[in-house]
Amino acid sequence: MTDSLALDYAQRLMACESISPARGSVFDTMEAMLVPLGFSVERFIAGADDADPAHGGPVENLFAIRGKGRRHFAFAGHLDVVPPGEGWSSGPFEPVIKGDLLYGRGAVDMKGSIAAFVAALHEIPEEAGTISLIITGDEEGPAIHGTRALIDHMQARGTVPDLCLVGEPTSVDRLGDMMKVGRRGSVNMWITVEGTQGHVAYPHLADNPIPRLVAILAQIKAVALDEGTEFFQPSNIEITELHTGNPATNVIPARALARLSIRFNDLHSGESLVELIRGIVEPGGGTLKAMISGEAFLTPPGELSATMAAEVEEVTGIVPEASTTGGTSDARFLSKLCPVVEFGLCNATMHKLDEAVAIADLDALTEIYRRVTLRLLNA
Amino acid sequence: MTDSLALDYAQRLMACESISPARGSVFDTMEAMLVPLGFSVERFIAGADDADPAHGGPVENLFAIRGKGRRHFAFAGHLDVVPPGEGWSSGPFEPVIKGDLLYGRGAVDMKGSIAAFVAALHEIPEEAGTISLIITGDEEGPAIHGTRALIDHMQARGTVPDLCLVGEPTSVDRLGDMMKVGRRGSVNMWITVEGTQGHVAYPHLADNPIPRLVAILAQIKAVALDEGTEFFQPSNIEITELHTGNPATNVIPARALARLSIRFNDLHSGESLVELIRGIVEPGGGTLKAMISGEAFLTPPGELSATMAAEVEEVTGIVPEASTTGGTSDARFLSKLCPVVEFGLCNATMHKLDEAVAIADLDALTEIYRRVTLRLLNA
Repeated sequence: MTDSLALDYAQRLMACESISPARGSVFDTMEAMLVPLGFSVERFIAGADDADPAHGGPVENLFAIRGKGRRHFAFAGHLDVVPPGEGWSSGPFEPVIKGDLLYGRGAVDMKGSIAAFVAALHEIPEEAGTISLIITGDEEGPAIHGTRALIDHMQARGTVPDLCLVGEPTSVDRLGDMMKVGRRGSVNMWITVEGTQGHVAYPHLADNPIPRLVAILAQIKAVALDEGTEFFQPSNIEITELHTGNPATNVIPARALARLSIRFNDLHSGESLVELIRGIVEPGGGTLKAMISGEAFLTPPGELSATMAAEVEEVTGIVPEASTTGGTSDARFLSKLCPVVEFGLCNATMHKLDEAVAIADLDALTEIYRRVTLRLLNA
Repeated sequence: MTDSLALDYAQRLMACESISPARGSVFDTMEAMLVPLGFSVERFIAGADDADPAHGGPVENLFAIRGKGRRHFAFAGHLDVVPPGEGWSSGPFEPVIKGDLLYGRGAVDMKGSIAAFVAALHEIPEEAGTISLIITGDEEGPAIHGTRALIDHMQARGTVPDLCLVGEPTSVDRLGDMMKVGRRGSVNMWITVEGTQGHVAYPHLADNPIPRLVAILAQIKAVALDEGTEFFQPSNIEITELHTGNPATNVIPARALARLSIRFNDLHSGESLVELIRGIVEPGGGTLKAMISGEAFLTPPGELSATMAAEVEEVTGIVPEASTTGGTSDARFLSKLCPVVEFGLCNATMHKLDEAVAIADLDALTEIYRRVTLRLLNA
């Protein structure tokens, strides 16, 4: 299998322990692959002066660029991985081939995909156009100092791509069966209802907040946000936590809390949903805090998604479904710059023990990335 | 004030640190008061072989009896006290007189009341009839090995009272304004709704238990148990806890829990309420556990309550309200043996810092207890 450049690159990247937030050696390895291909590599640490541990810094980021003029096509990805957990069959950072598979943390999410893109670059001449790589060390964490900082960096140097491919593992059962042309937005909300603590035997001297919270949640439960769109699932509200923290059976609690998580399509904005829920919570006697993690976005059908679909079909024989399902990715940030499509390896083992990629998929993905890049640059 | 026997007895009992469960010195002190008055004193430890820490053992109990024949009139009380907490103006177990008040833990709940009854005994001749004292060291705790064990003890020795006075602090604003002729029952219930944990972005792969719990609680909230009776407040359901234990904003929890506390009047039994709530919970997809702490009971208007009311009015000038409000007491157990009435000191400072009793109230209570005992024995 040593004739697979993508396999070789994947093994090199997966041998670097790069649990989010990633810095250092995995970026050294990446830089060493790109420089011989003619890339100018710019690396920087972001968030070093951010003391908030919830912000996940400091994070290393890498921006690499090659070529001039014509169109600017960007590949975006992340070198950080989620923690391996206990119980692997082999070392999570000691990539090993068994049969047709390469095992190790990051195999599909997404060092394998980055390796395939770098392998594809070997067959794309410099004069084809401007190609950049937007590579962060924090996509799996809070993502505060990752791709956002790279976007600031690109804007500061006056380099913004025309089209962007994000190499997230979008395939489901077979390489090529799904690409993502958008993602739902995400907002978390915290509802607090205050009452007055007291003894259950004297309820007239207390004020139980729980019935008010239950009434608020019953109303929220009855909300149907929409029925979905051509490209999106229906928006969905999940109540994810209830809490009173009251261990005493004879005490009416002073406070009752609930948390919501809403994944929403492009019929809504985070702010419109906050106002909708606030309109239930506040008249119901509660208060609301909200954190919008990302807005819904869609790259409408066009050149980028059509080219991706055509080349996937050419290489794999499958027409990929243009989906907007699943969790968020850094595409939510990049979509503010230019049209974005996400396509990559099969996600069945991502974030799991014994994460693995089919070696044949690495080579097929290299060919898809090569064709897509060339065709979009030559357009 | 040294001419007040009740004050002297109260100071002696309050000087013994007897945080629930009580044993030892406070019972020695009590025994030393009763023996000179001609009482046969039986003391025993209960719960010494009960390893369950929730059962509160081992507990000391005392049964004292004097006289023969005619009627058997019993006084019931407890020598244990709740923990004093921090911030007292003087030592909680160093009783001190300031102005008209005696300060110390147990002043009103209920060493002062026991002291008043023992003082009253000085003016009740042995030939008046059979008098017993049913004194436990665990009324403030789980009450598993307290008055229940004393009832077993009395039944084993073939001595069951005809009438019982419980010396709990029933007065509210002035000594004499309230007596208790019954108490509500109490039952706690735990509702569990099981689901399937999952990622909020893929709700079809998970099963959120919270909406089912909210629907169950909304139904329970709408239940009106009754509108009260001549002697009882309406029965009342309080939801006292909500819990999912799910810190991750993007996770649908596997389980949602709620706890109820119901205080109920004699239109219900603990078991009838468990079945009522089970009839909501189980069709709603949840499971129910319940613990009945006590059934509602009532001593209907009759000789005992009429005599108590008349003598309270005679001594204080106030006609006491015959109430069934408030928390439970050991009267719930004793009511299975004979008619029970509860009357005692003002409860404004019970369980609080700087618990205190008016010295004049100790003497007035002594006089009320003397008159009631004599009149009921001579009936």
